[in-house]
Amino acid sequence: MSSISEAYQSTRNHTVEICKPLRTEDYIPQPVAFASPAKWHIAHTTWFFEEFVLSTYLPGYQRFDPDFAYLFNSYYNSIGERTLRAERGNLTRPGVDQVYAYRAHVDAHMLELLEGDTPDELREIVVLGINHEQQHQELLVTDIKYILGHNPTFPQYKAGASLVNGKNAQTGWLAIAEGIYDIGFSGNGFHFDNEIGAHKVYLHAFEISRSLVTNGEFIEFIKAGAYQDFSLWLDEAWAWIQADDIKSPMYWHMIDGQWYQYTLDGLQKVNPLDALCHVSYYEAAAFAEWRGQRLPTEFEWEAASSQFDWGERWEWTNSAYLAYPNFKKVSGAIGEYNGKFMINQMVLRGASVATSNGHSRNTYRNFFHARDQWQFSGIRLAK
Amino acid sequence: MSSISEAYQSTRNHTVEICKPLRTEDYIPQPVAFASPAKWHIAHTTWFFEEFVLSTYLPGYQRFDPDFAYLFNSYYNSIGERTLRAERGNLTRPGVDQVYAYRAHVDAHMLELLEGDTPDELREIVVLGINHEQQHQELLVTDIKYILGHNPTFPQYKAGASLVNGKNAQTGWLAIAEGIYDIGFSGNGFHFDNEIGAHKVYLHAFEISRSLVTNGEFIEFIKAGAYQDFSLWLDEAWAWIQADDIKSPMYWHMIDGQWYQYTLDGLQKVNPLDALCHVSYYEAAAFAEWRGQRLPTEFEWEAASSQFDWGERWEWTNSAYLAYPNFKKVSGAIGEYNGKFMINQMVLRGASVATSNGHSRNTYRNFFHARDQWQFSGIRLAK
Amino acid sequence: MSSISEAYQSTRNHTVEICKPLRTEDYIPQPVAFASPAKWHIAHTTWFFEEFVLSTYLPGYQRFDPDFAYLFNSYYNSIGERTLRAERGNLTRPGVDQVYAYRAHVDAHMLELLEGDTPDELREIVVLGINHEQQHQELLVTDIKYILGHNPTFPQYKAGASLVNGKNAQTGWLAIAEGIYDIGFSGNGFHFDNEIGAHKVYLHAFEISRSLVTNGEFIEFIKAGAYQDFSLWLDEAWAWIQADDIKSPMYWHMIDGQWYQYTLDGLQKVNPLDALCHVSYYEAAAFAEWRGQRLPTEFEWEAASSQFDWGERWEWTNSAYLAYPNFKKVSGAIGEYNGKFMINQMVLRGASVATSNGHSRNTYRNFFHARDQWQFSGIRLAK
Amino acid sequence: MSSISEAYQSTRNHTVEICKPLRTEDYIPQPVAFASPAKWHIAHTTWFFEEFVLSTYLPGYQRFDPDFAYLFNSYYNSIGERTLRAERGNLTRPGVDQVYAYRAHVDAHMLELLEGDTPDELREIVVLGINHEQQHQELLVTDIKYILGHNPTFPQYKAGASLVNGKNAQTGWLAIAEGIYDIGFSGNGFHFDNEIGAHKVYLHAFEISRSLVTNGEFIEFIKAGAYQDFSLWLDEAWAWIQADDIKSPMYWHMIDGQWYQYTLDGLQKVNPLDALCHVSYYEAAAFAEWRGQRLPTEFEWEAASSQFDWGERWEWTNSAYLAYPNFKKVSGAIGEYNGKFMINQMVLRGASVATSNGHSRNTYRNFFHARDQWQFSGIRLAK
Repeated sequence: MSSISEAYQSTRNHTVEICKPLRTEDYIPQPVAFASPAKWHIAHTTWFFEEFVLSTYLPGYQRFDPDFAYLFNSYYNSIGERTLRAERGNLTRPGVDQVYAYRAHVDAHMLELLEGDTPDELREIVVLGINHEQQHQELLVTDIKYILGHNPTFPQYKAGASLVNGKNAQTGWLAIAEGIYDIGFSGNGFHFDNEIGAHKVYLHAFEISRSLVTNGEFIEFIKAGAYQDFSLWLDEAWAWIQADDIKSPMYWHMIDGQWYQYTLDGLQKVNPLDALCHVSYYEAAAFAEWRGQRLPTEFEWEAASSQFDWGERWEWTNSAYLAYPNFKKVSGAIGEYNGKFMINQMVLRGASVATSNGHSRNTYRNFFHARDQWQFSGIRLAK
Repeated sequence: MSSISEAYQSTRNHTVEICKPLRTEDYIPQPVAFASPAKWHIAHTTWFFEEFVLSTYLPGYQRFDPDFAYLFNSYYNSIGERTLRAERGNLTRPGVDQVYAYRAHVDAHMLELLEGDTPDELREIVVLGINHEQQHQELLVTDIKYILGHNPTFPQYKAGASLVNGKNAQTGWLAIAEGIYDIGFSGNGFHFDNEIGAHKVYLHAFEISRSLVTNGEFIEFIKAGAYQDFSLWLDEAWAWIQADDIKSPMYWHMIDGQWYQYTLDGLQKVNPLDALCHVSYYEAAAFAEWRGQRLPTEFEWEAASSQFDWGERWEWTNSAYLAYPNFKKVSGAIGEYNGKFMINQMVLRGASVATSNGHSRNTYRNFFHARDQWQFSGIRLAK
Repeated sequence: MSSISEAYQSTRNHTVEICKPLRTEDYIPQPVAFASPAKWHIAHTTWFFEEFVLSTYLPGYQRFDPDFAYLFNSYYNSIGERTLRAERGNLTRPGVDQVYAYRAHVDAHMLELLEGDTPDELREIVVLGINHEQQHQELLVTDIKYILGHNPTFPQYKAGASLVNGKNAQTGWLAIAEGIYDIGFSGNGFHFDNEIGAHKVYLHAFEISRSLVTNGEFIEFIKAGAYQDFSLWLDEAWAWIQADDIKSPMYWHMIDGQWYQYTLDGLQKVNPLDALCHVSYYEAAAFAEWRGQRLPTEFEWEAASSQFDWGERWEWTNSAYLAYPNFKKVSGAIGEYNGKFMINQMVLRGASVATSNGHSRNTYRNFFHARDQWQFSGIRLAK
Repeated sequence: MSSISEAYQSTRNHTVEICKPLRTEDYIPQPVAFASPAKWHIAHTTWFFEEFVLSTYLPGYQRFDPDFAYLFNSYYNSIGERTLRAERGNLTRPGVDQVYAYRAHVDAHMLELLEGDTPDELREIVVLGINHEQQHQELLVTDIKYILGHNPTFPQYKAGASLVNGKNAQTGWLAIAEGIYDIGFSGNGFHFDNEIGAHKVYLHAFEISRSLVTNGEFIEFIKAGAYQDFSLWLDEAWAWIQADDIKSPMYWHMIDGQWYQYTLDGLQKVNPLDALCHVSYYEAAAFAEWRGQRLPTEFEWEAASSQFDWGERWEWTNSAYLAYPNFKKVSGAIGEYNGKFMINQMVLRGASVATSNGHSRNTYRNFFHARDQWQFSGIRLAK
């Protein structure tokens, strides 16, 4: 069996693994526009292979159901589709069983296809599909947490799967010298279009923390009244705090004078030594301001990344998500992949406890809106 | 077995019957604030008996799960609860199985209780619970239709269950003489607090149609450009048409020059001879205006109701939902039943194809907002 | 000079009189959609005479400015116009001077026209225009109060013009016997289309208060915690209180433990003996509920109105604004006058301190939304 | 007379000059949250000197009116103030005359103060106030244009003041070599906190256009159907186009097959040879995408700026508005000046026809939201 086939199967299996603790009901809702239903994730990742691989490369392939292209396509951009996007949580049919049957159908044909010759072009699109599915695996975890974590009964997803623990093994500041650094992906492996185009960036001397901000440090920030002090916050961050009555990271609850947090293993006490997560960029920036320090840029982070531990928290940087000098949108639907989101989002670097194996590298550029808290996002300071 | 016990069981069984064609997924979503999830309906009707009957009348009764009072109580009125109301569709736990276990638990205890002595006070509250559940049965049908009918694949709920057919057996106008009429419930059977207090109403002579407006008549209205002619519409109706781009009754679709409608049996051609349904008060009033006629008041309707067929469509009247002269709110949570909705809603009289057996009478006052289309609501004209 | 001409002039002068204390700046804003700018009121009332009188009855009449029909016409119903409606406060041109020149132009031609023969049809439309302008005079006063009253510096409109004083001369309850009453306008004078069609209404015996609810009585209601007790409020009233953080009648401010209110004479202490005003229907209904009484229907009010003092507060009734039995919309633009608002508004009876002389009668039906507080609206109880 | 005094007077006079063509009415409205009333601009710039200069440096200074600090302070950040911000257009009092009296009062005291010794610290804050007022002068022009340009009668602000003309004197592409460039302000003159901190930036070789995109080029883009082709647009740009029905730059109107635009001199034909203005970042980015080119970064722009003409259009860059490496917020209210807006805005470089004399330099960083069109913003391409 070829390694591409193995990679395909292992990725596809991992998605199913993530969903195993779910009940049928859990696959359905879309509580906020940014968190898609589990059913949609598992169908959409399947649709990707049907649309971009099987329909093109497997002669005589018959689509499982022609409606599915319409229902599970996040790319086709029209008014109708946009309406549909916010309505994903209302689509009870096709059912979960049908969507798994769709997966099985596509998997069988994919494996048939991958047993034969796999020209470079085909391998490339399959690898893209695998990485696409890995991205959705991470969203699956965080979207499931969002749904269960907003249930007043705080149901457990899986025993032992809290995912919020993690102590800093390193401490202190790392000094990086002024100079020209090579930034961006330049190897042979897989990479997204947004990280390609190795280029030079001039960095002034800076220091970056070897450790992530801990829950305990953030509790000090809360105790100091930071959520009530507008001078620490960006103008629109302050509006967000007022409008949504934000008083802590997402999933935190003050019960009888003690901070608790919802985890995938249920409600647990906040451990002051663990690395903080579920903060927005707004909160990360305010915390840095309060400390008299700052967030690193994505270039500083990348230049220094070989010298500290990372991989458990997505780390907010002080860089906006914009194109690298040589960025070029691919033509066609695949070209909609990353480029169209290059506005009003901030870059996160690293990876998180929800990131799939083999899906992280130090040139990876993740991006979310400044107010987003539902990822396992944390803070590393610079100065 | 006592008749109250039989009535209880038959009502409870009917709810389960309605849900039989549903898949687990169908129980979950709340696509709009006014349409609650099926899971919520079956749990909430159960909660009613647990809260108002078992907790009071069955000594030593243990609640199935203390959280359920919070999750499935539509009465407790606080900010928290209001937030929860719009979030019903995001509650995946307790699951459908648990909610049916809750039903079984409450049913077993209810039957135990009803086997013994049933003092009047107990019987009254059980009968209220039965009627409350019958109201939810109707909402179950219309909410299920809403969810399935907004799925782009138009899934069938049950073969043969379209519910939209229905021809007028009678025709022509019925003349009612001027005079004083007795209005409101005055018998011995069950009735809601809003229909009690028989009182006199003076009616001027009027004529009321023996037949309901048909699909064919409404198609004429559409063809005449009525949805584009503001002079036919109430001011806020016109705003609604513009904002929501309304062009037909709910569930109607123009396909290749022919009107189709989603029914519980899937997509079907609109039959011009069937009685129209799924129109808002706005549409009913505009149609009457276009005809140079008007809608009857709820008093005219009630006074004439023994002389025409009714029962397949809720019929919009030109009466606002307000208190009868002797209306008195019951104290406590039960008092929130009807009185608090007496503002900005219009009265519908009759009953519909989704109304449970034994749940209709000519003094029954149903009420919805003027824009609501999702009930099996139709039009009877007066002049 | 004919009496119609005198009536015209006196009405037109009164509008100018109301605006005299205004500065140019005060004519411009539209702080909420329901409160039109003073400039718009004085132009729109002028446009009415140009459009419906001069253009039809004065041969060779030249419009002052063709754009004005578009800018100051509240009737022409299209998407464009609706956008414009909320934008009235942004129209700085034509300026206040131009609008007064427009008034002068139309007045000169109206007086010329009214010097000659005035056939019945012409007189009727002129009288309608006069009454239309009187309605706007009342809105002018309340809209001016809204603008100045929401300025943090509480500017005075005119010394001695507070308009909120008024003691009840009568006390006690008036008993009205059961029977058939004639309701609606039946005389020869001016009346609106919504009050025409005298008809019989059967009333059960009831009692109605000779006095209006006072500020002092309402302060008791506040002190009793009524704004925090959901059981007193209609469901949507409670939502309104939560969303808008309502804690008192409009214009009331608690300063150093004492209730003050903004009046057209500036900020003043609330006098407990004065008749309450600036309450919504929601507040009126909750107050009645708290007292264990109710609001009268508009029919009860009219039947009893000759036996108590009224005229300083618009009084909320428990009747929805709907058509009388013989209501018939006039064809054409004039037909849009009242009928199109007959949904989701409540009837107020009486008149207020802001009502122009000669503009009140006991058959007059005013109507506002249940949440509206900015009129001089008060409470009379029934039981 | 000292030069600081002269600079003060000349700046203050220029503000008054800009407002001369306004009528009193024009000073009032705030048609959208981002466009403040002219009255507010002239009062707020005055308040700056009263608050930060006179109150501190002129012994015994008496404030003109204590309320003004509350009304015209854009800095004091509380819930109350935020409410007030959107309500600026409803504040009819203090009137325009009073606000000019406030100006005169502050000017008299400022000149008295500036006649004496002016220590460095005082001079610095006065120069900041002058530059602050110059910023507001530009906003005054564009906000006035917004108000008059959204009036359906398209009133003229001043004859000959259209401000939209401007031909490119240069053409062709300018090649800039790869290397390290010094970016940011490093001289002795005035500068804002956001441009300070000269630092090195590595630029790869690029070409930048010597000319701005013209109206004619943009008409080609429109004719090619670009506003209907989602593939050219950023994801949220496409949502903006759909939601707001955007079809052209702001102020453009298609009349009888010809493009017209509102100018401060009234409605005029669009001249294809003039430099385009009033486009959003979204439109600038889509235009570049359509051309197969891109927008320059702010660093590229600054590095090349000595070799092309600029100064008539603010030019959108592909850089987000973020802190320079050594950015440090000043403590106190002055510190709120720029830093708190460093999120979700894009940088514009250059200056515009509305920029005051002496207020432009090639290190100046202007910033607006990606959807903003109301500035004189244009497009310069890079590749």
